[in-house]
Amino acid sequence: MTRKRKTLKSGMGWSTPTSITVRGRDLANELLGKIDLGGMAFLEMTGRLPSAQEAELFNALLVTLVEHGMTPQAITTRLVNLAAPEALQAAVAAGLCGVGSVFTGGSELTAKMLQDALRNKADDANLDAIAAKIVESFVASRRPIPGIGHPVHKPIDPRTPVLFGIAKRIGFRGRYVALLELVAAQAEKCLERELPINATGAIGALLSELKFPWRICRGVAVISRAVGLVGHLAEEMQNPLAREIWERVEEEVFENRS
Amino acid sequence: MTRKRKTLKSGMGWSTPTSITVRGRDLANELLGKIDLGGMAFLEMTGRLPSAQEAELFNALLVTLVEHGMTPQAITTRLVNLAAPEALQAAVAAGLCGVGSVFTGGSELTAKMLQDALRNKADDANLDAIAAKIVESFVASRRPIPGIGHPVHKPIDPRTPVLFGIAKRIGFRGRYVALLELVAAQAEKCLERELPINATGAIGALLSELKFPWRICRGVAVISRAVGLVGHLAEEMQNPLAREIWERVEEEVFENRS
Amino acid sequence: MTRKRKTLKSGMGWSTPTSITVRGRDLANELLGKIDLGGMAFLEMTGRLPSAQEAELFNALLVTLVEHGMTPQAITTRLVNLAAPEALQAAVAAGLCGVGSVFTGGSELTAKMLQDALRNKADDANLDAIAAKIVESFVASRRPIPGIGHPVHKPIDPRTPVLFGIAKRIGFRGRYVALLELVAAQAEKCLERELPINATGAIGALLSELKFPWRICRGVAVISRAVGLVGHLAEEMQNPLAREIWERVEEEVFENRS
Amino acid sequence: MTRKRKTLKSGMGWSTPTSITVRGRDLANELLGKIDLGGMAFLEMTGRLPSAQEAELFNALLVTLVEHGMTPQAITTRLVNLAAPEALQAAVAAGLCGVGSVFTGGSELTAKMLQDALRNKADDANLDAIAAKIVESFVASRRPIPGIGHPVHKPIDPRTPVLFGIAKRIGFRGRYVALLELVAAQAEKCLERELPINATGAIGALLSELKFPWRICRGVAVISRAVGLVGHLAEEMQNPLAREIWERVEEEVFENRS
Repeated sequence: MTRKRKTLKSGMGWSTPTSITVRGRDLANELLGKIDLGGMAFLEMTGRLPSAQEAELFNALLVTLVEHGMTPQAITTRLVNLAAPEALQAAVAAGLCGVGSVFTGGSELTAKMLQDALRNKADDANLDAIAAKIVESFVASRRPIPGIGHPVHKPIDPRTPVLFGIAKRIGFRGRYVALLELVAAQAEKCLERELPINATGAIGALLSELKFPWRICRGVAVISRAVGLVGHLAEEMQNPLAREIWERVEEEVFENRS
Repeated sequence: MTRKRKTLKSGMGWSTPTSITVRGRDLANELLGKIDLGGMAFLEMTGRLPSAQEAELFNALLVTLVEHGMTPQAITTRLVNLAAPEALQAAVAAGLCGVGSVFTGGSELTAKMLQDALRNKADDANLDAIAAKIVESFVASRRPIPGIGHPVHKPIDPRTPVLFGIAKRIGFRGRYVALLELVAAQAEKCLERELPINATGAIGALLSELKFPWRICRGVAVISRAVGLVGHLAEEMQNPLAREIWERVEEEVFENRS
Repeated sequence: MTRKRKTLKSGMGWSTPTSITVRGRDLANELLGKIDLGGMAFLEMTGRLPSAQEAELFNALLVTLVEHGMTPQAITTRLVNLAAPEALQAAVAAGLCGVGSVFTGGSELTAKMLQDALRNKADDANLDAIAAKIVESFVASRRPIPGIGHPVHKPIDPRTPVLFGIAKRIGFRGRYVALLELVAAQAEKCLERELPINATGAIGALLSELKFPWRICRGVAVISRAVGLVGHLAEEMQNPLAREIWERVEEEVFENRS
Repeated sequence: MTRKRKTLKSGMGWSTPTSITVRGRDLANELLGKIDLGGMAFLEMTGRLPSAQEAELFNALLVTLVEHGMTPQAITTRLVNLAAPEALQAAVAAGLCGVGSVFTGGSELTAKMLQDALRNKADDANLDAIAAKIVESFVASRRPIPGIGHPVHKPIDPRTPVLFGIAKRIGFRGRYVALLELVAAQAEKCLERELPINATGAIGALLSELKFPWRICRGVAVISRAVGLVGHLAEEMQNPLAREIWERVEEEVFENRS
């Protein structure tokens, strides 16, 4: 066997009899009681502790994505819990399998669009021209532009101004946000309909401001949805809905059999 | 069809064109920027906002369980990402499937043991006698007592005193903690070996102090591990280990074929 | 590091440039076109090729569990496909997460009950007495006896006589089946209601006749359900139901908000 | 609420007290003992029973994909079983999450390529010209051509001639296979290296001959892998490898900590 072996190194964490180290920090003495879960997620994903401003913004982004009511993912988690109540983790895992392109891919695609557009661009690059090129390219290939428009929230998505307001207050309303606003404005003009920046778009832009590579952006949604899906299980234990949902479907299919 | 239909009601959340309601709160105006992710998890799981003390303690519990280095779950998430990099959510889901009885069931079992023991017990119940009964019952049936003992962390688990210290400072070191300490002390005497309260035991006791039903306790671990597994993916994108792990296993099995 | 390393050996399979070996057989020349999928599953799970009789019986057991209509698992797979159509495997995985204790645990529990009861018992052991002991033990602890009774199929489960008929014809109707029949008969007398052997019970008994350890019996259900869930996805692509199911739930929760 | 409700209809299956109907067939009387698991998968996925020839070919395709030794998916399933042995279904689900683009996407992509190319083409379409166009398009966009080339199996993939041989014998070696052979031949000339049709390519072509839409082709791999992963669990129960794999990784990371 001539393959060269690669040494396995990782900075995530390890334990000795008297200590636990996480991302280079002593868990018991440097982290517990000193960092909240959102800050911990930042540390895990970037390898460094967030500033107070970064922690505030990142927590706000995470909180935004936790709960969207009775989504397909939430129903999924409840149904799997009905079938396998002894494996709560599998119910959450099943729901998370649905954090895919249709409902939550927006922040990832927005971040990719913005990061691709501004990679290696000078600080004084002409954002108007860049936005025009983006809109042109999506329209030409008949693809929807990520991060703008919403089926329900009109004329604006109420989360967007709040998130941008937090970002502005603490100094993270930078050129990714500016570019996305220009994209939205030009798209509205070009396509002649209301295309407000939606929450996932805002999150994709703000994660870019926080320097998260676009490839990991879906992970932010995954964390938030894990929280939300556990919430649904907590409610399901008090107020079971899954059996009713299942039985109605089964009955209706039975009645309509042919 | 004579089954009585049950109306579907849920307090998790819903949307109108101009607002999003989560657990009875206006997401944009009451939650974003005003609550951290740990507090949001508390709201999701209990239906009410945590006090500042509850939020502090709950965040500490969540942070404790985020990262344990290269666990089977972390390796799993990395391997699935190697095979299906386009479905990041599935890689996290796969790792979460392993949040089961062997590595993370401790807090759930501890909470169950403590909550079962103190259910309907008067405030001045004799904890010593209750602890004795617990130890006797587990020893008699040769089952391990949950929440005590640790294969690595000896003589104490460094996370436990920090968590109990936080709880004491803010007024949440109550009788569930007291009972678990008595269980540990009596078990050490009875079984004649060191059986310190481990981190999952401490968490099970403190979730009981926070009035979380034991059935949802595994959900707390699931949330934390979702954060940790996304962290592993972030590192894997910079420093890929999964291919090396896989190739070594495959090569060794090939070399030892018969 | 003083831990003794264990050599990694596995008989599942490996490849060379010119051949693929699976469970000790040359895949291309000994298996392809010569074994069906059920027989292949037998080879994978036991390490040996089935006889023609074993293959017939095992295929029948597998076929039994493939499709049960609009179960919670089937709805789950359809909902995840709605949310993440690009990751078909995750939709099936999500549905399989629900192959747990409530709907499909029966064959595993039946096999455990029967195998535990007959372990190390002589060939001429008194099955009547063993059955009596089983029924007594379950009734005393108020646990349901696995493998008997069915909420819908009364007075008998139509699958059971067919499966037992196949087994009888090919010589696999042995003492596990006999014991389960005695358990059912005595339970009916003791509990004074109809308790026919249901399909999962029959499968648990017949997997025991095929010498499958009870711990792997759930795996048989998992294989069958994987087939069924892919079937539901195939229908969902032609006849989408998931969006309608989801929207109805969301609408009803919205209408009943408070 | 003005949305028009869609009636839920499905032909997958339903039950009455005395019968179970699957895809329009009486399970107990028309399917059990009369169809093998591969044939059942065909019925589930297409809604009709296969001919003997179709069943033979489809079983061969399914058998091909069952087992590939210690793949990332197999290691995943073993690791999750180590962590959550009580939830066997979750271990298989976790492994299936990895049936993604890298290791098993080939048959889906091949089927898409071939079906897109021959859609609405006359029976006497010039396959040479179509193949040339395919190769040109992939080479121009620097994408790998699906279904050809293999990192290990050289100069040919030993499964391919066996599968094509079965197809030829029973009359299913049609123009999808012919087109893929032309693509491989032209790609070898154009790219000046050996690019034999690999097993997933052959399967993509043969599923097209069987008239499976390309979107469901990954489902065939999912079914096969479910069988293989249950096989790995059966071996893991006799010969546990997961703990050793995990401990080695953890130890090496610990030794290389910095």
